[in-house]
Amino acid sequence: MDSERVWTAALVVIGDEILSGRTQDKNVAQVATWLNDQGIRLSEVRVVPDDIARIGEAVNALRANHDYLFTTGGIGPTHDDITVDAIAAALDVPVIVHPQARAILEAYYRDRPGGLTDARLRMARTPEGAELLDNLYSGAPGIKVGNVYILAGVPAIAGSMLESLTGKLEGGRPVVSVTVGARAAESDVAELLRETEAAHPGVAIGSYPFFRDGGYGSNFVVRSADGELARVTGDELARRLREAGYEPVEGGI
Amino acid sequence: MDSERVWTAALVVIGDEILSGRTQDKNVAQVATWLNDQGIRLSEVRVVPDDIARIGEAVNALRANHDYLFTTGGIGPTHDDITVDAIAAALDVPVIVHPQARAILEAYYRDRPGGLTDARLRMARTPEGAELLDNLYSGAPGIKVGNVYILAGVPAIAGSMLESLTGKLEGGRPVVSVTVGARAAESDVAELLRETEAAHPGVAIGSYPFFRDGGYGSNFVVRSADGELARVTGDELARRLREAGYEPVEGGI
Repeated sequence: MDSERVWTAALVVIGDEILSGRTQDKNVAQVATWLNDQGIRLSEVRVVPDDIARIGEAVNALRANHDYLFTTGGIGPTHDDITVDAIAAALDVPVIVHPQARAILEAYYRDRPGGLTDARLRMARTPEGAELLDNLYSGAPGIKVGNVYILAGVPAIAGSMLESLTGKLEGGRPVVSVTVGARAAESDVAELLRETEAAHPGVAIGSYPFFRDGGYGSNFVVRSADGELARVTGDELARRLREAGYEPVEGGI
Repeated sequence: MDSERVWTAALVVIGDEILSGRTQDKNVAQVATWLNDQGIRLSEVRVVPDDIARIGEAVNALRANHDYLFTTGGIGPTHDDITVDAIAAALDVPVIVHPQARAILEAYYRDRPGGLTDARLRMARTPEGAELLDNLYSGAPGIKVGNVYILAGVPAIAGSMLESLTGKLEGGRPVVSVTVGARAAESDVAELLRETEAAHPGVAIGSYPFFRDGGYGSNFVVRSADGELARVTGDELARRLREAGYEPVEGGI
């Protein structure tokens, strides 16, 4: 099982608003969850500012090392939307007005006030050689160029673009997670966790402590691309926790 | 003003739970906001898995290029907590049991069930040459080694460690943000934004669209290390929006 092909992706989150703390990113979790369902592992994320060189550097560092690279942010109509320019420069191709994207925007803005202004037409620009990703939420499409998937920053729109890609990317088996919670401080069960993981090659057990309702607890997450192995290991972990005096909660607390 | 020294920081978020989508990261926004108050700009974030080599690679790439490097996650008592080992390896120093950290943990666990177990003692391990960061929330301290600040992953604990550092790091002037909202699609005011930014060197204007209560709107964020300049530019942006027929909302919508 360890020799099975693992498909990986990286994500570049583009936006001063994330790095300033003004906006709470939602796309990392959204893209991660979606990728997992496609059997693709999110292996690295970088958050970079609205800066052509910095975006290009991250894109080039990551697209070479992963099967897929996703970006979120910076494809709107305003002057700070520079993702297309940055990625075209990184790929060393020109920016063009994509005829199909232009047609989509023309149709979308035909009956809307203002029509297809120059600013809105910016959203039809793509690196040369790109294909479009459906945006079921608003007009402007996402962009695929090589193994780079360029998504919007607004989470609902990024989600719509991912939805249009569902089932279309080659991947492996999705990682299955089994969560077992207990009212145990993780330091009290550290050895038990280590032993359980060591006894089941091919699983990883993560430990996530919390303090809630006036008491400590932890959720233990058993992960494996072998779903049956994840379930068996989760059952054994629950049994060991019970034997150690901690009532396990399947599905987590 | 542009020649003023800008202090920058990077952040490495360590954790399979973020990359799997299981856990919504809160530390990027928390660290970013805190750094801004210290006059330090968060310039890059990387999210990496619980993997010694990958953590080390990110730490070494970023600590050289920034005044400060922060990490969150992976300093608890369980087998998947490998941040200290990874950073020690990256710095090419041994891992030691820090005497002061040991004393803190001995005091903390003296009257707690189980006492200072081997697993808990793991939390006294630091790279050689480290200082400790107060953890006002639970026993185990954070760690400073060179320009690397190693924080817990649990946001409340990471926040407590940041709190103990407040006012202690050298920085420049905090960036001041002025937000002006309007019920305008950003594509309708793209040119107005571009002109306003161009007329005020030293400010950056970000544009953040939303769809809410059945209508479009945007928040425009004027940022500058010169607070007066940010306010003047915000006022002018509000005036221009009003003249264009969009009633501005100071502080954003």
